[in-house]
Amino acid sequence: MGKVRLIEIKQQILADNQKTADRLRSRLSASETYMVNLMSSPGSGKTSLLLRTIEALADRCRLAVVEADLDSTVDADKIAAAGVPAVQLRTGGFCHVEAAMVEQALAHLEPAALDLIVIENVGNLVCPAQSDTGAHANVVVLSVPEGDDKPLKYPVIFAGCDLVVVNKIDYLSVESFDCAAFKSRVARLNPTAPVCELSCRTGEGLACWFEWLEDRLGSA
Amino acid sequence: MGKVRLIEIKQQILADNQKTADRLRSRLSASETYMVNLMSSPGSGKTSLLLRTIEALADRCRLAVVEADLDSTVDADKIAAAGVPAVQLRTGGFCHVEAAMVEQALAHLEPAALDLIVIENVGNLVCPAQSDTGAHANVVVLSVPEGDDKPLKYPVIFAGCDLVVVNKIDYLSVESFDCAAFKSRVARLNPTAPVCELSCRTGEGLACWFEWLEDRLGSA
Repeated sequence: MGKVRLIEIKQQILADNQKTADRLRSRLSASETYMVNLMSSPGSGKTSLLLRTIEALADRCRLAVVEADLDSTVDADKIAAAGVPAVQLRTGGFCHVEAAMVEQALAHLEPAALDLIVIENVGNLVCPAQSDTGAHANVVVLSVPEGDDKPLKYPVIFAGCDLVVVNKIDYLSVESFDCAAFKSRVARLNPTAPVCELSCRTGEGLACWFEWLEDRLGSA
Repeated sequence: MGKVRLIEIKQQILADNQKTADRLRSRLSASETYMVNLMSSPGSGKTSLLLRTIEALADRCRLAVVEADLDSTVDADKIAAAGVPAVQLRTGGFCHVEAAMVEQALAHLEPAALDLIVIENVGNLVCPAQSDTGAHANVVVLSVPEGDDKPLKYPVIFAGCDLVVVNKIDYLSVESFDCAAFKSRVARLNPTAPVCELSCRTGEGLACWFEWLEDRLGSA
């Protein structure tokens, strides 16, 4: 009984969130500011991917980062140290980022003067899949040590994304990760999402991610 | 405004869940059946730890497993193949296991005839921390590739657990994971929880986990 009531309220909140997300996306599109929502398990390498992206694009692209964590400013500190504006959202018990939180974060940046905003969502393969952040694209990062079966276990997030990044491919020699099986599991859920295989540690494969991102800049 | 209403309902559900969890725990204690709730990020090695546990304890301990995933029966299939009764909970969009779900799962087992039940929670470091499953103990598994900063970012789950398992220590040679820093971050949140460092792949360090578990059997 309690659960039914929760779902009703949740639908109300989801509807409110959708409106906020759509408004936010239109506002960013008006200034040709592209926003990407980065999602993954804890420790898959979202921050490492961001640091590589800053390294590669910061001189020809005005970018900023919205970090989200239950607690701490660990990630925002790393981004700020790399010379890019970063806002940390402390979500407390909240397991994902909603559009209203992003709107609050953007009040501390100058979105209209930016080309790219990246949201680093809470490390979680479940909840972030259910909430529109207002981003133009959703990217799922999965790291090789997590295993190739994750699309079977967390289908919603893979079904709803625009790009899948497989990070830590330098582990392929020690992990029994079947890339072909992983890709076919993704394709079954999401036939159009490309898969970029890369290693933020060694730099291998990063071009795939940069190309995807640069194709989108200015298309907001 | 929507959010405030959600919290009210959520508290109601949390209160209902607490009652169910307490009732379940008492019922299991009456038959000296010990229940452990295993929590971690996706791919940290909960299932691998379970398979090692079955290998080591199945001949002197009657055990069963409750698996939880958004979708698929991948993990329950592995457990059943190892010769141990397993029930798979498909949580759909739900990001954690609640006591009522465990109660439903136990209807398919014979809890009173068991020494040990292990719940493998949904792979998630956020939501499972907020809901009592009815287990006697909560264990968090973190794997080395996820990084030593996770207690800073997901404090609730580390603060509320009875044991921390660091899995994949065979990665220590390739990952910059600072064990001492990790342990001191855990200790700041949870001064009494022991930390077992092990590798399900190589078997190193597993004795720590087995000893912790055997100490508890019969203490339900």
